[in-house]
Amino acid sequence: MKIKVIKIGGKLIENNSVLASLCDALASLGEPFVLVHGGGVMGSHLAQKLGVEVKMHEGRRITDSATLDIAVMAYAGLANKRLVAALQARGVNACGLSGCDMAVVKSHRRAVQEIDWGFVGDVDDVDDDILAMLLDKGVIPVISPITFSPKGDLLNTNADSVASAVAEGLSRRYEVELVFTLDKAGVLLDVNDDNSLIREITPALYAELRAEEKIHSGMIPKIDNAYKTIEAGVASVRITSPNDLRGGTVVKK
Amino acid sequence: MKIKVIKIGGKLIENNSVLASLCDALASLGEPFVLVHGGGVMGSHLAQKLGVEVKMHEGRRITDSATLDIAVMAYAGLANKRLVAALQARGVNACGLSGCDMAVVKSHRRAVQEIDWGFVGDVDDVDDDILAMLLDKGVIPVISPITFSPKGDLLNTNADSVASAVAEGLSRRYEVELVFTLDKAGVLLDVNDDNSLIREITPALYAELRAEEKIHSGMIPKIDNAYKTIEAGVASVRITSPNDLRGGTVVKK
Repeated sequence: MKIKVIKIGGKLIENNSVLASLCDALASLGEPFVLVHGGGVMGSHLAQKLGVEVKMHEGRRITDSATLDIAVMAYAGLANKRLVAALQARGVNACGLSGCDMAVVKSHRRAVQEIDWGFVGDVDDVDDDILAMLLDKGVIPVISPITFSPKGDLLNTNADSVASAVAEGLSRRYEVELVFTLDKAGVLLDVNDDNSLIREITPALYAELRAEEKIHSGMIPKIDNAYKTIEAGVASVRITSPNDLRGGTVVKK
Repeated sequence: MKIKVIKIGGKLIENNSVLASLCDALASLGEPFVLVHGGGVMGSHLAQKLGVEVKMHEGRRITDSATLDIAVMAYAGLANKRLVAALQARGVNACGLSGCDMAVVKSHRRAVQEIDWGFVGDVDDVDDDILAMLLDKGVIPVISPITFSPKGDLLNTNADSVASAVAEGLSRRYEVELVFTLDKAGVLLDVNDDNSLIREITPALYAELRAEEKIHSGMIPKIDNAYKTIEAGVASVRITSPNDLRGGTVVKK
């Protein structure tokens, strides 16, 4: 069976009309998928309203106990349930899950080295049996970036990493396409021109484009990560706009 | 198969040590159960911190759009995931669900009559197939009081009503005991004396106690509701302290 694992950003959930058009697109896919969502902006907005200071180190957030509660409320609560309700309204039998639910995404708290990142998780394992049980019943899992450690800690986790781990876990039994959405048409030769879209990237083309410095530096870690998940068993990685889930750029072996 | 549907209040989730002893008690039950939780205090505290005014009418809350978001964050988010993570840490394979998840608790928005209660739901249907699928796999459903209408509205719902509807739904296939927890040992002859506990209430005894005005007026709606769920198929209703889930008062046919 073929399956898509689709990662979307939190920005798409905050605005009702954007959420509606995203869910229209997902409902019309007509094939099984797993959705993994972020929620960054919703967390930041809630922290701001609550007067909780967001602590950063080198541009990355530190998750103290108050910030964790905010992330759980915003991501596992509001973002997740809004998405699920909007999908249900369109006939998609969605089920919201955070990592703790049926222990579907286990992680460990990141070790303290130079800096204590707080309640931040690095994913250890995704339970593909549970996800397959749901998919076999026609259920679409909608996964928040709140994972948990078997000790019982809820942990804030990078949603891209959760999506990659879910895709890798499911590739043990399905042919998986991992879809990353962004606010461009895909990987572009000219970052300001959607017509300069590269439809397919192979290792040979990628080496050539990098040698010629034709790929925007922000795209390099995304494509490098795409190849890591492909090495781990994922069939292909698509980088595209949420409005064109079958389009954009496909990264392939 | 016998199964317990256990309703707990939100107060038990807010404090870590209270939550820990509740989850110890649940983990040592050694039988399948479904947990339904409220979250009232967590919602009120969050509303207060956010400066959102809680609108009331005759002692009951009106759920406007801002209050609904708070309820979804506090109940479907923080309360639900804290419970699930704490149960997982004790070897209970819990799965948090709100009504929208796999459409497990469908409701409709309460009709506007003299007063518009806002985004408040009255339960229409509980999907016992979904709950049975989970229970058959050894999964313990943990249900928040956020339900949804098939139109896609998330709806704040009375947790006692959700628990009753879940118990009634499950009684189509199991022998169900519905357990309501409170901060007393159960139904007491003398409200200030836990030793005055009535261990079993039958319709005959209930009629007698009411005629003699020996039952505290606050208990009458609880026992009336217990008999309504028993008429709807639930085997028995237990009213007890969360520290003594096998004790307290059993209301029987």
